[in-house]
Amino acid sequence: MSEVYAARRARLRERCHAAGSEAALVSGNANVRYLAGAAPAGAALLVCPGQDVLLCPGDPCGTPAVARPAEDLRVVVLDGADGDPAVAGAERAAVAGAGSLAVEEHHLTVSRHRALQSVAPRLRLTDLGPAVEQQRLVKDDEEISSLRIAAEIADQALGELLESILVGRTERHLALELERRLVDHGATGPAFPTSVGTGPNSGLAGHLPSDRRVEEGDFLSVCVGADYRGYRSEIGRTFVIGTSPADWQIELYDQVFAAQRAGREALAPGTPCRDVDRAARVVLEAAGHGDRVGPRIGHGVGLENDEDPRLTPSAMGKLDACVPVTVDPGVHLPGRGGVRIDDTLVVRPEADGGPELLTITTKELLAL
Amino acid sequence: MSEVYAARRARLRERCHAAGSEAALVSGNANVRYLAGAAPAGAALLVCPGQDVLLCPGDPCGTPAVARPAEDLRVVVLDGADGDPAVAGAERAAVAGAGSLAVEEHHLTVSRHRALQSVAPRLRLTDLGPAVEQQRLVKDDEEISSLRIAAEIADQALGELLESILVGRTERHLALELERRLVDHGATGPAFPTSVGTGPNSGLAGHLPSDRRVEEGDFLSVCVGADYRGYRSEIGRTFVIGTSPADWQIELYDQVFAAQRAGREALAPGTPCRDVDRAARVVLEAAGHGDRVGPRIGHGVGLENDEDPRLTPSAMGKLDACVPVTVDPGVHLPGRGGVRIDDTLVVRPEADGGPELLTITTKELLAL
Repeated sequence: MSEVYAARRARLRERCHAAGSEAALVSGNANVRYLAGAAPAGAALLVCPGQDVLLCPGDPCGTPAVARPAEDLRVVVLDGADGDPAVAGAERAAVAGAGSLAVEEHHLTVSRHRALQSVAPRLRLTDLGPAVEQQRLVKDDEEISSLRIAAEIADQALGELLESILVGRTERHLALELERRLVDHGATGPAFPTSVGTGPNSGLAGHLPSDRRVEEGDFLSVCVGADYRGYRSEIGRTFVIGTSPADWQIELYDQVFAAQRAGREALAPGTPCRDVDRAARVVLEAAGHGDRVGPRIGHGVGLENDEDPRLTPSAMGKLDACVPVTVDPGVHLPGRGGVRIDDTLVVRPEADGGPELLTITTKELLAL
Repeated sequence: MSEVYAARRARLRERCHAAGSEAALVSGNANVRYLAGAAPAGAALLVCPGQDVLLCPGDPCGTPAVARPAEDLRVVVLDGADGDPAVAGAERAAVAGAGSLAVEEHHLTVSRHRALQSVAPRLRLTDLGPAVEQQRLVKDDEEISSLRIAAEIADQALGELLESILVGRTERHLALELERRLVDHGATGPAFPTSVGTGPNSGLAGHLPSDRRVEEGDFLSVCVGADYRGYRSEIGRTFVIGTSPADWQIELYDQVFAAQRAGREALAPGTPCRDVDRAARVVLEAAGHGDRVGPRIGHGVGLENDEDPRLTPSAMGKLDACVPVTVDPGVHLPGRGGVRIDDTLVVRPEADGGPELLTITTKELLAL
C-alpha cells in the first residue's frame, strides 16, 4: 500500500514544482490521510525533496496515536502538549534549505500561519490551495472498493432496523441502534451523525435525533452512513409507519422519488455538476416545491462525508468517471413532515453501464 | 436566560472598546455558543454597536438548524450553500460604519481572513485573540450545574456497565453501550469519543476501542463523558477483571491513585496550574514512571472537552475558584497495560470545603 501513498505525494510534488514551490505542508486532516495513509488529529505532512515527514502532535496523554502511516514516511511525534506540527514542519523545511513552502491557507488559521512565518522568517510561504482536494476527486479502485463496503454496511444496518418494532421508540434510540449496527458489521463508526426524523421532523436534512417517539401514520426518515477504512457512505430513506400511507404522503414520496431518479440518471462523465442539480430540481419545482428544496441536490463523498464536487445550481466543473457522489433531494412540509431519498453512487460511463449504485436498499415506499 | 448571554456580550464589547475595536466577529464554535446561546456549525457572531447578529450558514439541505439563540439577537440565515457567515459578518460591520473589527485569528483560516478583507477593504482587521476563551474560564452557577448533571450521567452510565457481564465483550461494544446509556440518562451525546481499553490496551489515553475482547485477569480502563446542554464531563476508571488482581496490578493502581489524589488535593484558587501537574507528577516519578507520564495531568472542561486551563509542567497562570478541571494521570506499561484515573472537579476555596468532586464513582480497585 505504501506505493499508493508515495505515488500520490509524487503527483503533489510535481504540481508544487510546476507552481514554483520546493516543498508543501499539508495540514487538512483528510488530505494528510490521503497522502500519508494515516492522520492523527492535528498532524501535518511535509512533502519535500528527500524524505517526506509526518509530524504528529505529542499525544495529550503520552501515547502517539499513529495508526500505521505509509512505511517510507519519516514519522516525528512532537514533545509536549504544545508542539504545533505545522510550525515544526515549516521549521524543518527552512532547515532543509527550502526557499519557499506551499501551505493550505484554507486549513491554516491566521495565528498558525503567523507562527510558521516567525519560526522561519526567510521561508516564502505560498498558497497550495485545494490541490490535494482536487487530487482526491477521482477515486482509484481501492478507494471505491472501500466505499462499496461502507455502503453495504449502511444497507445492512438499515435493513436490520426495519425488521424491528419501531412504534414507540425515540429518534435518539433508533439513531443509536443504527450506529451500533454499523459497528457490528465492521464499520469504524458512523460516517456522520446519524439522522432520524419522525412525523413533523421527517424529511428535515441533518435533523438531530430528538426524544420524539415514532407514532402510527408518521413518515420516518433516516440518513445514515458508515466509515470503512476512512471512506464514508451515505444512504437516506423515508418510510411510512402503520398500515397504509395517506394520499399526501404517497404524492410527496412520488415527487421526491422522481426528482432523485432524475438526478441519478443525469450522472455521467462530462456532465456539468449544475446540470445534475437542475435535473432533480426541475421535477420538484414543477410539483410546486421549488422554495422547499435545499441549496443542493448532492455532494461528493470519500475520506470526508461532504467533499467536492458539490451538486448545486451555481457549481462549476463537470463530473468525471470514478467520482462518487450522493444524490439526496428532499422536501419538508412545515408541521407535517417530509421525504428525503439519498443514495451514494459512482459516476461511470454509459459503456460501463452508467452510474454504479452503491446503496441498494429499496426505494419503494415501505409501510412498516 | 437571554440576559446571561447579553451580559457576556456586554463584557466582550467593553473589552473590545478598551482595545480600540468597535466591533468583534466571533467564529470559534464554542465561543459563539457561549455568547449567543446556540451555535449551528459554521455560524459567526457579530458583536457591534446596536443589535448583535448571529450569522448562520444556509443549511446544506435547506433547513436552518438554529437551536434557540438568545432572543435579543438578530439571526440571519445565509442563502445558498456557499455563503460564509464570517465574511457576511465583516460586510455587515463595514456597512454599519465600523472602522475596525476584531476577529479570532486562531479560529479563522488564512483564506477566510483574506475573503473578509476583500469584501470590506476599508475595515481594519485586528486580532481578538483568546478573549472569549478567557471569559469562559470561570463558570457561573448555571454552567456548573450543567456540568454536575453531565458528571452524574457519566457516573450512572459507568455504574450500570459495571453491573453487566464484561468478559468476552469487545472494547467497541462496551464503548457503544456506554454511549447508549449516556443518552438514556439524558445526555445529548458523548462529550468525546468514549475510550475503552482492555489488557495491553488499558491505561492508554485516548485509546480508540478495538475488537479486542475482555479477558480474565485484564485491566479494563474506561474514559467516558456526557454532553449535557453543551457542557462536558469526563470520568476515567480502571478495573480488574476476574477474581483478584495480580501484585503488579495492585502496585501500579496504588501509584496512579496516589498521584491522582495528590493532583486533586493541589487544586485551590491561586495555585499555579503547573503546581497541580507537579504534585501528581512527582508521585509517579518517585515510583519510577517519570517517562511514562503524559505531557499533562489535567485540563479544563466546559463547552469543550478540552479547554483552558491546561495542567502541564510549563503552564502559565493560576487557578481560580469556579474553574472546572479534570485530574487524569495514567501510566501504561507497554505490552502489559496500565491504569488511568480521571475525575472532573470544580476548584473551590478551602473555606467552601475545597475542590468539589463531580464524578463520584468509587476509585477503589474493583475486581469485576
